[in-house]
Amino acid sequence: IDRFGTALARAKKLRNLRLKHGWDLEDFRTANELVSEPGPYALHDSMFLVTIKEQGTPEQHDLFLKKAEKHGIIGCYAQTELGHGSNVRGLETTATWNPEDKTFTMHSPYLTASKWWIGSLGKTANYAVVMAQLIIDGKSYGPHPFVMQIRDLKTHEPLENIHVGDIGPKFGYNTMDNGFLLFKNVKIPHIGMLARFSRVDPKSNKYVRRGSPFLVYGTLTWIRSTIVMQAGGVLARGVTIATRYSAIRRQFQDRDAREWEGGENQVLNYTMVQIRLLPLLAATFALHFTGKSMMNLYQENQKKMNAGIANADSSKRGAGPEETESGSDLLADLHATSCGLKALSSTIAAEGLEVCRRACGGHGYSSFSGIGPWYADYLPTTTWEGDNYMLTQQVARYLLKSARSVLNNNAPTNDTTRILKDFRSRADIGCAFDILGSDCDLVSAFAWRVSFLTFEVLKHRDEQKKAWNDLLVDFYRLSKAHSQFMVVKNFHSALSENSTREKLDDDTLQIMHKLFRLFALHTLEQEGSEFFASGACTVKQISLARTNAVMKLLQDIRPHAVGLVDAWAFDDWVLDSSLGRKDGKVYEDMFYRASELNPLNWITVDPYPDSEVLFRRDERSKL
Amino acid sequence: IDRFGTALARAKKLRNLRLKHGWDLEDFRTANELVSEPGPYALHDSMFLVTIKEQGTPEQHDLFLKKAEKHGIIGCYAQTELGHGSNVRGLETTATWNPEDKTFTMHSPYLTASKWWIGSLGKTANYAVVMAQLIIDGKSYGPHPFVMQIRDLKTHEPLENIHVGDIGPKFGYNTMDNGFLLFKNVKIPHIGMLARFSRVDPKSNKYVRRGSPFLVYGTLTWIRSTIVMQAGGVLARGVTIATRYSAIRRQFQDRDAREWEGGENQVLNYTMVQIRLLPLLAATFALHFTGKSMMNLYQENQKKMNAGIANADSSKRGAGPEETESGSDLLADLHATSCGLKALSSTIAAEGLEVCRRACGGHGYSSFSGIGPWYADYLPTTTWEGDNYMLTQQVARYLLKSARSVLNNNAPTNDTTRILKDFRSRADIGCAFDILGSDCDLVSAFAWRVSFLTFEVLKHRDEQKKAWNDLLVDFYRLSKAHSQFMVVKNFHSALSENSTREKLDDDTLQIMHKLFRLFALHTLEQEGSEFFASGACTVKQISLARTNAVMKLLQDIRPHAVGLVDAWAFDDWVLDSSLGRKDGKVYEDMFYRASELNPLNWITVDPYPDSEVLFRRDERSKL
Repeated sequence: IDRFGTALARAKKLRNLRLKHGWDLEDFRTANELVSEPGPYALHDSMFLVTIKEQGTPEQHDLFLKKAEKHGIIGCYAQTELGHGSNVRGLETTATWNPEDKTFTMHSPYLTASKWWIGSLGKTANYAVVMAQLIIDGKSYGPHPFVMQIRDLKTHEPLENIHVGDIGPKFGYNTMDNGFLLFKNVKIPHIGMLARFSRVDPKSNKYVRRGSPFLVYGTLTWIRSTIVMQAGGVLARGVTIATRYSAIRRQFQDRDAREWEGGENQVLNYTMVQIRLLPLLAATFALHFTGKSMMNLYQENQKKMNAGIANADSSKRGAGPEETESGSDLLADLHATSCGLKALSSTIAAEGLEVCRRACGGHGYSSFSGIGPWYADYLPTTTWEGDNYMLTQQVARYLLKSARSVLNNNAPTNDTTRILKDFRSRADIGCAFDILGSDCDLVSAFAWRVSFLTFEVLKHRDEQKKAWNDLLVDFYRLSKAHSQFMVVKNFHSALSENSTREKLDDDTLQIMHKLFRLFALHTLEQEGSEFFASGACTVKQISLARTNAVMKLLQDIRPHAVGLVDAWAFDDWVLDSSLGRKDGKVYEDMFYRASELNPLNWITVDPYPDSEVLFRRDERSKL
Repeated sequence: IDRFGTALARAKKLRNLRLKHGWDLEDFRTANELVSEPGPYALHDSMFLVTIKEQGTPEQHDLFLKKAEKHGIIGCYAQTELGHGSNVRGLETTATWNPEDKTFTMHSPYLTASKWWIGSLGKTANYAVVMAQLIIDGKSYGPHPFVMQIRDLKTHEPLENIHVGDIGPKFGYNTMDNGFLLFKNVKIPHIGMLARFSRVDPKSNKYVRRGSPFLVYGTLTWIRSTIVMQAGGVLARGVTIATRYSAIRRQFQDRDAREWEGGENQVLNYTMVQIRLLPLLAATFALHFTGKSMMNLYQENQKKMNAGIANADSSKRGAGPEETESGSDLLADLHATSCGLKALSSTIAAEGLEVCRRACGGHGYSSFSGIGPWYADYLPTTTWEGDNYMLTQQVARYLLKSARSVLNNNAPTNDTTRILKDFRSRADIGCAFDILGSDCDLVSAFAWRVSFLTFEVLKHRDEQKKAWNDLLVDFYRLSKAHSQFMVVKNFHSALSENSTREKLDDDTLQIMHKLFRLFALHTLEQEGSEFFASGACTVKQISLARTNAVMKLLQDIRPHAVGLVDAWAFDDWVLDSSLGRKDGKVYEDMFYRASELNPLNWITVDPYPDSEVLFRRDERSKL
């Protein structure tokens, strides 16, 4: 409760500062990012406003959006339910059309229909966008968005027949009031259904579809691309802290050191620490460049689509993006790629943060490391906007379709079909990639592995008729392979582009190139058996990569490690970490925080079990 | 502070119950385990009492132990410092002998000399065992243990020139008051130095060593064995929760399901969920049997040693266990094995718990999952009693010594030299293990890989003269390979023993056998490239293991999964998990806890940014 109260106060303050200083959206986003914690208005600012904007009519914008932008109403986005998350079509909340008085009845027929995990709903919001099954005359038309009031605008108490509250403590994210919401036959007016893409005609009481909501799927792609981009920065915080600390921390002498070489060794000099941290350092840049490239592609494509949208025949499209004809437009390619990359990059970032925390040894466990809470708050990213395991099916499905089109010689032209065709064209002669001598070959080896796995899985599914469920693990591997290829390829391209080369001096470019090779070769070695099984390289090459190339790269990058993390330019107050201080005063800061700022030290306990007194002296009130 | 207060109250209560009901040590331990949280007296009960008992003289037992056992004094064990953890010899706190008044002066010369992370010290203890560098006449004799008073027995305020307090919030373990401790020239009497193995002679002012402390290293081995054993049970909690929940949770239809097969599928039926949970289920049993076997070996060995100790020439031994002659006694073998197994098993348990949490999807993130806090509290196990990365050097060092002795034909007879000799004897003819057809061959393949890696690393070190630091990553791989072999071997042996076979009926034995195969084959597939590179099996075998054998085992084990986790027999109140309830009332319990037990719901906030009021209604006081 204390944490939530502080977060609420902070969020209010931020909004008032915005008003006072006239920050634009970009400024405001930056300010929020600097605060680095999820706040009670987060879903109001994002999903509530965006959904009304994108799916509402001009009339609905007038009615809801204007008030919302001035915080006259505070909203949230209520989709997930207690019983259903990933499977949106399985939602149980109903919105039943009442022809007699032209209203909808919102109802939660079961306990599992309760909205759950809804950010900003627990305590803060008085409005909500609610996803509910639209029912007209007993027939269900699938989930649709409805805007409705849930709390009194004055007293802030729940309206009648609405049960709403906070869902309780979580592993992280406790500065956010995730909530639950149940309806007992609550009526809302016709205007409540967001009607840009479909509506109920109040005269005929019929369901009317107008236009295709497929731009909305573009939005999802966009959100996933930003997750990829952010993953680099998120991970960079952990890498910065662990790298700086490992350069300060000394422990043991080098075992081969001669007697007269006194003093303990910087922890960062040990190869066992380097092999954990430096590939992650390389990953921060790899993910950054990949995210950037995805967002560029998205914007280009969006322009093309907006230009061509009048001509597009969207009536043949199904509702989901997975139904688009692969290659009929670039969106399908982008969509699949963004699914896989979202899964891979958020997994790399989340697991990498924990690796960084552990690389800080015992002190990494202290809250003063600054990594633990940040990690805990980041974790849900691996589940939301598509669970990382679920998403891999989308990628596999797309790759299978592409492979079928290549086999049938009706493949569209895009990056995916290109590598599949290349692979097929060399079916009889194999490959010989010089992965340690040529960067291009290294990238090609990643492409080769993807193609090999794709056709393997295709054989299982189409020839051996294996059950979908029996292939989920293969799909996961396939998606991972594809996404790793994309990251390696994008990192390589970014360093080859003139725009990058002009901005960086030769030394920097050389170091970035080493980071690229470290990321690619370390990944290759980790996934060694797939590379070998696909014939993309030999066992000898993998073994040389591991024992020679990677070790040499660690050695080369080590002297630049602190400089490279400094390039991310996090301020000390953003990192909020004793271990990651730029000035290296690690121990002084830990001691200061423990000794001076720790409220537990304003208390004296009674230590004896036979005494019922717990606290003998309590000076917290003197604060 | 609230959490610590509750924990203190609980710990006091438990002690009074013990007195009231006359629990013996075993009962008391069980009660503590059932409480399932680290408490403020934990270090008093364990390290404080044990160290005085093992390293004190009878006179010191009289003086300290008797009072401590009656809680007349409350102690802790102060070894780790702000600047030094793993490297005990690098500790900076000094204990300087004063010949004139026969006292020691305890002093912290630098900030980094501050004791840090010391459990029970922050608030609770009034006594401490302090590890400090013994200095006599300007010469340092290395770290030794001293017992001293740090807080007033009546007021509980710190004594003069002692700065002591709590080190602040942590990622977990917040029910324990980890503390810091600094001395400014504090004098303690001669009796304060624990003198069973070494002392300062007050007459001659000379350092006197008596007997070898090497039984103490036996204790470390014992502690590590218990960590292996516990790892199985720790992981089993997570696996129980995730397995039960996955059997209740339904999401999506099977994609191959026909139209008329209505209803959503249990999440546990998806192979992508099975491949994450079922190998961990197998691991719980594998670790349990391994820990049990380690503890048996230890006890046998301890008996032998106690029998032969009078004859042993311990004067030639160095201080550390790594200095023992490999094979000169079984302890060296046991010590190395326990180091590697401690590292592997606590890593499997910690990472496995997080896999279980994520397998629960979004709801895994709620505190009501019961996994998050348990995971956070378990994490330090990967660092203490030897950091999991550091420990792998001990294993590698031992394997290298054993390999050298095999090459020199002066190898002692033990399990390790046996597999190395077998490998050497087949150097010219290689191997042909039927890993999918024969269990014994499967175990042998694990042994083969260890031997191959050992001789590889030996070549790097002895022939190519590679630097120790450049081999740390190889050592890590080697240790992991050795420990995986031990677990697979022990699991296999346990199922072959008559004592096991008599206790289990045929069906159970068959399922346990499948779990053994799943654990071994899944591990083999994960480490595929090492198995292949060592020649222990072919690529075709690994590929068959993955696509056929493992998938078939998942299918066979699936129907027994819930029964198998039930066999661990955790009570609902021990798991404290909505998701893991035995009766399956997952949603009802989550809703009850959120709606009825969540203090945030006794508050109404003011949601508007322009109002400075945070809470409008606050009914927490009505509790």
